[in-house]
Amino acid sequence: MMAGWEAVRDEVLRRIRARVWPPGAVIPGEEALAVEFGVARATVNRALREVAESGLLERRRKAGTRVAVLPVRKATLEIPIIRQEVEARGERYSQRVLAERMDPVPLAAALRMGLAEGVDLLFLETLHLAGGRPFAHEVRWLNPAVLPGGELPDFRHISANEWLVQNVAYTIGDIAFSAEAASPEEALALGIRTGDPVFVTERVTWSGEAPITFVRLLHGPGYRLRTML
Amino acid sequence: MMAGWEAVRDEVLRRIRARVWPPGAVIPGEEALAVEFGVARATVNRALREVAESGLLERRRKAGTRVAVLPVRKATLEIPIIRQEVEARGERYSQRVLAERMDPVPLAAALRMGLAEGVDLLFLETLHLAGGRPFAHEVRWLNPAVLPGGELPDFRHISANEWLVQNVAYTIGDIAFSAEAASPEEALALGIRTGDPVFVTERVTWSGEAPITFVRLLHGPGYRLRTML
Repeated sequence: MMAGWEAVRDEVLRRIRARVWPPGAVIPGEEALAVEFGVARATVNRALREVAESGLLERRRKAGTRVAVLPVRKATLEIPIIRQEVEARGERYSQRVLAERMDPVPLAAALRMGLAEGVDLLFLETLHLAGGRPFAHEVRWLNPAVLPGGELPDFRHISANEWLVQNVAYTIGDIAFSAEAASPEEALALGIRTGDPVFVTERVTWSGEAPITFVRLLHGPGYRLRTML
Repeated sequence: MMAGWEAVRDEVLRRIRARVWPPGAVIPGEEALAVEFGVARATVNRALREVAESGLLERRRKAGTRVAVLPVRKATLEIPIIRQEVEARGERYSQRVLAERMDPVPLAAALRMGLAEGVDLLFLETLHLAGGRPFAHEVRWLNPAVLPGGELPDFRHISANEWLVQNVAYTIGDIAFSAEAASPEEALALGIRTGDPVFVTERVTWSGEAPITFVRLLHGPGYRLRTML
């Protein structure tokens, strides 16, 4: 008898690796595996769910569970607030608000947020620092319509990033990563040269149907976004 | 009475957003919520698990379930094989092997793989094309010790990426993304200019304790890695 779902998962992984269950094969049902392993069916279910989440098994309600032929592996990225990211590196976090004003949203940001061009949004430009040195440059459009009570904090004391996480829960979001060449303004803010490669994170979040914010975050050379597979 | 776990999840999300349950608050137990919503306790459990996976709730076995004060949101990235990625864009995939030889592994790759410098590994350099145009440049070190039967395929006919996914299951991996400036060789392979920003993906995978492969993949300007939050 196996102790828990982790032991069942490990045995399932072993059989996939050893090709006891080759790619494309339908594996035995949960009931049969529960009997074989001497565990509850729920334990088998928990183990198979975990392996399916890794992409190695494909579960279909009627056709049963198959070993994936071309498993799509998945990686989970944690998206921390920037202050925590900096502090986790053992450095002191600070931030500087470079611009804050109501402004008509430009087309590119409006398209990302699903808004009409020219709607008035709050524009914020922030430099995040680690140990006093530029760490990330942030440009953000914030939809005042979704803010609680319409009352905004003093963004010199709390970053919009942190305040939103604490105060405005979103239901869905979209995130994209790319490599770009720093513009003269971006290079100046980050203390790098124009044209240097920057790691760009663009994120849009919605509360139901209403867009909350579109943010474009730039990290200079040397930044790595890392996770486990 | 609520229909299913999705309805319970939506009501939980509504209460968190509306601050009926503010950040840091301990929410009612599963039993109490099951009674309130008129559903089975397992239904509440399923809904809370989903919300906890999004980072908005923190579940502790003894202390109960709390609304996260600074929720760490998570994004799931799918890591497809490159052929599928290209075909999903509606383009024809092809690949060109630029180099294939046994070579002593250099220090940087050895460190990533947890091997001693100078161990003989298979070195592969591949250009992935979309519609005949360079899509990604790949440099890979492959540990022959973990390959099934020691028999290698003809990598001109199947990319190492696809062959490994089909033939060598890994247990854990590490993936990192960064922005770099293309070296002269990389720029030449991708048909871009030296110094142009490239999106770099570095991945190491292991089978148990044994490293399988270290791969460094470069995408030229315009590439975006995108997912939902």
